[in-house]
Amino acid sequence: MITECILQVRTYECDSYGHVNNAIYLNYLEYARYEFLKAINFDYPAFIKAGYGIFVAHLEIDYKKQAYPDDLLTIQTRPLKKGAVSGTLAQKILRDKESIVEAFVTWACVNTEGIPSKLPPQWNVPGLMPED
Amino acid sequence: MITECILQVRTYECDSYGHVNNAIYLNYLEYARYEFLKAINFDYPAFIKAGYGIFVAHLEIDYKKQAYPDDLLTIQTRPLKKGAVSGTLAQKILRDKESIVEAFVTWACVNTEGIPSKLPPQWNVPGLMPED
Amino acid sequence: MITECILQVRTYECDSYGHVNNAIYLNYLEYARYEFLKAINFDYPAFIKAGYGIFVAHLEIDYKKQAYPDDLLTIQTRPLKKGAVSGTLAQKILRDKESIVEAFVTWACVNTEGIPSKLPPQWNVPGLMPED
Amino acid sequence: MITECILQVRTYECDSYGHVNNAIYLNYLEYARYEFLKAINFDYPAFIKAGYGIFVAHLEIDYKKQAYPDDLLTIQTRPLKKGAVSGTLAQKILRDKESIVEAFVTWACVNTEGIPSKLPPQWNVPGLMPED
Repeated sequence: MITECILQVRTYECDSYGHVNNAIYLNYLEYARYEFLKAINFDYPAFIKAGYGIFVAHLEIDYKKQAYPDDLLTIQTRPLKKGAVSGTLAQKILRDKESIVEAFVTWACVNTEGIPSKLPPQWNVPGLMPED
Repeated sequence: MITECILQVRTYECDSYGHVNNAIYLNYLEYARYEFLKAINFDYPAFIKAGYGIFVAHLEIDYKKQAYPDDLLTIQTRPLKKGAVSGTLAQKILRDKESIVEAFVTWACVNTEGIPSKLPPQWNVPGLMPED
Repeated sequence: MITECILQVRTYECDSYGHVNNAIYLNYLEYARYEFLKAINFDYPAFIKAGYGIFVAHLEIDYKKQAYPDDLLTIQTRPLKKGAVSGTLAQKILRDKESIVEAFVTWACVNTEGIPSKLPPQWNVPGLMPED
Repeated sequence: MITECILQVRTYECDSYGHVNNAIYLNYLEYARYEFLKAINFDYPAFIKAGYGIFVAHLEIDYKKQAYPDDLLTIQTRPLKKGAVSGTLAQKILRDKESIVEAFVTWACVNTEGIPSKLPPQWNVPGLMPED
């Protein structure tokens, strides 16, 4: 299942080239991942309150086209892989149905000591699994 | 040749986990790439003035350990690959000689129309070539 | 006339206190000012293309309450003062109709040399004038 | 007593005007305030660990001149006012001894419930008092 969210590029997210700075896309992807967690009923506030965390372990990103102030961007997020402790999401940023950025983001669950650990059952939700 | 630069983590670069947000490392790597360009005598202001640009086409990043406010980070940058239009840099962020982040960053030169193009001779400097 | 726009707080805009970092509100206010310019038919892209710029000369901001991830914020912008070269906008950020941030932002028009100068007639739009 | 710290403007801190975005100066001032706290022996990590916080309640900032990538900026911080719960700092950003930004920042101490409260004795250090 692909989760979608929409955002609009803002002026301060652009650098002296006049386009969105390469780091800002990681902000966009983070925003989309939190919308994805909501969509799959992963209770993130409760997760954090219980002392757990999710970190980005690895990220690959292809910058295909630039984005500019006011561009309306759609971000698609879907699970690609899933293990007990970590998984990978495929994320795609589109403008007018054209892919401008594609990324693979590997996340890992950590426990209260910051050590990678299994996702507790309450948060090991089906939506984290890739569809087959 | 490995170019090094140093920076110190600042509080506003950290998110609600209390550690540096994953997007911020891309800012750090960008800073290090500009220091690298200076070190290899790539005249970036002249390059921009002539209407050219360098964009990040692709990036892979491994987040091994977290960084915190006041951490002194050393960033190493060295060329890995080089073509006529693009190349890849290997970048590493260390704290106390321990690698905390590693990345491969593929850059591409664009001309005044924003089209990928060969680096003009004046900027096709030796330091962009990997050592063999 | 008060112009309104809405945005939602994102996780990466929050710092280690878990609330929106004080600098980020200036990003929000900038976004709202650009929406304000559109609403009053100030053609900003044409303005920039003609070589002009608008800078923030002075800003006063009252931080009344904190904002958190997912908060829906309404930003109101209205002109307070207007001269030939500069003016002041009153901006207010509300959550559930409660004011959480209030600011006065003084802007100045600069010409192609970066010198403060009169707004050219094409951009000296009525919406920049406070209502009386 | 005036505390000083130095930083260098980085490319990603600049927007499409090619100069430092107005919000970024608040990041710079935050950095300088934390250096100030260290200089006056305010143990900030212990303060946070004890459950307290310091928030910015009010800020006035004068943007006099622009700053550009690679500019070396000196930030001066000195106390202007001090009460039991809050105080005001005067901060100045200089380039080559020329003032480019000046600000007054009012801070407030909050307790573990986020309610403004007196600074606990351990952190009510002399350096927070203006000299007279």
